Amino acid sequence: MTAMQAQNTLAGQIVSAIREVVGAGPAMLHEPSFNGNEWLYLKECLDSTFVSSVGKFVDRFELELAEFTGAKHAVAVVNGTAALHIALKLAGVTAGDEVLVPALTFVATANAVTYCGAIPHFVDSDVATLGIDAAKLRDYLLSHTEQRANQCVNRASGRIIRAMVPMHAFGHPVNLDELLAIARDFNLALVEDAAESLGSYYHGRHTGTFGLMGTLSFNGNKTITTGGGGAILTNDVELARHAKHLTTTAKLPHRWEYRHDEIGYNYRLPNLNAALGCAQLEQLPRMLAAKRELFCRYQAAFMQIAGVKLIAEPDQCLSNYWLQTLLLDAERADQRDRVLQASNDAGFMTRPAWALMHQLAPFEECPRMDLSMALSLSRRLINIPSSASLVPDAI
Amino acid sequence: MTAMQAQNTLAGQIVSAIREVVGAGPAMLHEPSFNGNEWLYLKECLDSTFVSSVGKFVDRFELELAEFTGAKHAVAVVNGTAALHIALKLAGVTAGDEVLVPALTFVATANAVTYCGAIPHFVDSDVATLGIDAAKLRDYLLSHTEQRANQCVNRASGRIIRAMVPMHAFGHPVNLDELLAIARDFNLALVEDAAESLGSYYHGRHTGTFGLMGTLSFNGNKTITTGGGGAILTNDVELARHAKHLTTTAKLPHRWEYRHDEIGYNYRLPNLNAALGCAQLEQLPRMLAAKRELFCRYQAAFMQIAGVKLIAEPDQCLSNYWLQTLLLDAERADQRDRVLQASNDAGFMTRPAWALMHQLAPFEECPRMDLSMALSLSRRLINIPSSASLVPDAI
Repeated sequence: MTAMQAQNTLAGQIVSAIREVVGAGPAMLHEPSFNGNEWLYLKECLDSTFVSSVGKFVDRFELELAEFTGAKHAVAVVNGTAALHIALKLAGVTAGDEVLVPALTFVATANAVTYCGAIPHFVDSDVATLGIDAAKLRDYLLSHTEQRANQCVNRASGRIIRAMVPMHAFGHPVNLDELLAIARDFNLALVEDAAESLGSYYHGRHTGTFGLMGTLSFNGNKTITTGGGGAILTNDVELARHAKHLTTTAKLPHRWEYRHDEIGYNYRLPNLNAALGCAQLEQLPRMLAAKRELFCRYQAAFMQIAGVKLIAEPDQCLSNYWLQTLLLDAERADQRDRVLQASNDAGFMTRPAWALMHQLAPFEECPRMDLSMALSLSRRLINIPSSASLVPDAI
Repeated sequence: MTAMQAQNTLAGQIVSAIREVVGAGPAMLHEPSFNGNEWLYLKECLDSTFVSSVGKFVDRFELELAEFTGAKHAVAVVNGTAALHIALKLAGVTAGDEVLVPALTFVATANAVTYCGAIPHFVDSDVATLGIDAAKLRDYLLSHTEQRANQCVNRASGRIIRAMVPMHAFGHPVNLDELLAIARDFNLALVEDAAESLGSYYHGRHTGTFGLMGTLSFNGNKTITTGGGGAILTNDVELARHAKHLTTTAKLPHRWEYRHDEIGYNYRLPNLNAALGCAQLEQLPRMLAAKRELFCRYQAAFMQIAGVKLIAEPDQCLSNYWLQTLLLDAERADQRDRVLQASNDAGFMTRPAWALMHQLAPFEECPRMDLSMALSLSRRLINIPSSASLVPDAI
């Protein structure tokens, strides 16, 4: 194949479009930017010697997260997985329960369910949001569950379905109105996995603040990072207090005694990581602007390519555009691997969606509904370089 | 009571002795010292943008930990609790098993057992090491367990006792020869909780390297700190590989695919925290020297006080003297709270031993042997200010 022919393939066109937007490369999928007070705060933290379990940056990070998201309370933890584990526990998920989880998600969503001894129950996705398909879920619950003593019971397994965990994939808000209605109608707790959606809004309100609790991640590949970190958001003061207690080994306050009244976890975010987070939060508005601008540039570049579209934020939503995402037309799904190969070979890091949860060995036997849209999406989605630093003039 | 009378009480004498060694105070129980390359490495890490799940400091920290301890492999994780959880899982601890744990330990030891769905079974302590009393444990296992198909079964509960987790309290090595013999004789896996004993040696070999696996902690209150962090030590390459896999979400290596072959955990140590760890490891020999010198100074100061002794390293052991520890004579146990009150009031942070595990609500119903020595010790132990920085000329 000549260079000219390669350029005329879909893979060649996509690589060209990426190059047009981000330059010659190489370009990572997502790398952090440290252009603010990161060093200042890290140094201040180190100089204070309070680098660990207590310190002013943890308190400040929690307050500023609450302020930014509009949640009444934020509890900083060691990562998004830990946040989900505790949120599910506080939502009442216990051994033998089932929890509704999208099949199309990062593995942490399903793993956190198993940490409670519960079983993930996989649900299909909506092409408009890439999140849980609410209409399909309602039909499924109507035909497959029954209410017993105000609990939603899976007729096939006999187990209680205790909660649902919608995940805002790549930063695009799910259909929260419909999912909240389902949660209410079927007696399910709703915990939002907002790991990818810091800075994303549904009908003007920040994701992660609609359910009983929401969870954030500040892993190195996220919009802002603390190295490793996460948070639990909630508007319920008692849940916030309990989350803080459980994530700090459930130690009872006392001047010198070490007593613990529950099985607790060592899930607190170190002050050192919170210091980085405080500086990153200051940069967040600029990061979001850069990522939106990157979306616009990609949109212009991909508009002319037949057979692929760039995923845009759902109606009445603002996405953070954490990961820019291409969707191949159904009849071009077979070209996905060629696109991945060509773009990665050219130095542009791209990746497909995660393997669907029910395709992973540890979850093969878990209950699931028809997953045809998730399957179709997983064969056609491609994430492309998405760092805010790709729009250097905006950050 | 006049000032003169107060000084003649045991509490008054102890406060005076502490003041004699550490100066006017205030003095924390244990605070970190950052006198080396901490700034340099943190800045280098930040400038690299690799602050999170991958980066050269994590690899370097693991290599240097292995080198320092003499373990063949070290796997850095997010904290000591996570290290114990994974070590127990890899030791084969599963739901419904029992695991032998000292009653006198920090709650993480028992919590980690429950994370595997297993039940802690509490054992008594030895006054010479503050760790598991090996002779008493052997007698107890002989009379309370039987071997069935090469597994140790608790006759009372019918459950398999899968493992034992000796903990090197305050840095003092337990009687490993005897405990390893018991592990062999009764078919128990031995996992060392060496959270407190980095720099402590038993018969010339570093603690944490005797059992199937050992675990370390780098919490802010430990001899060296990464903010929050821990590690798994092992001489078994396959266990090390598996520990790394489980602590990094069990993701299979692939250029772009996201597939996971087991239920994994987000337990990796961020590169940012590892950067701090690398700098701290360079300081460790000096910290250990300072802590040993502090012990000598305390020993001189407490030698003249009747009714109290300073805990020294066991025979043929080198302790890191993580926390300096006083032991009141049995007939003076009732003065413990007065000592705690007087010393904390005077600005010297002191604390008693942890509440014993079986005294905590979540563990009240767990199986246990006679715990009379642990009970006696827990009423008489007092930790006193122990930071390396209290010997400023040595660090």
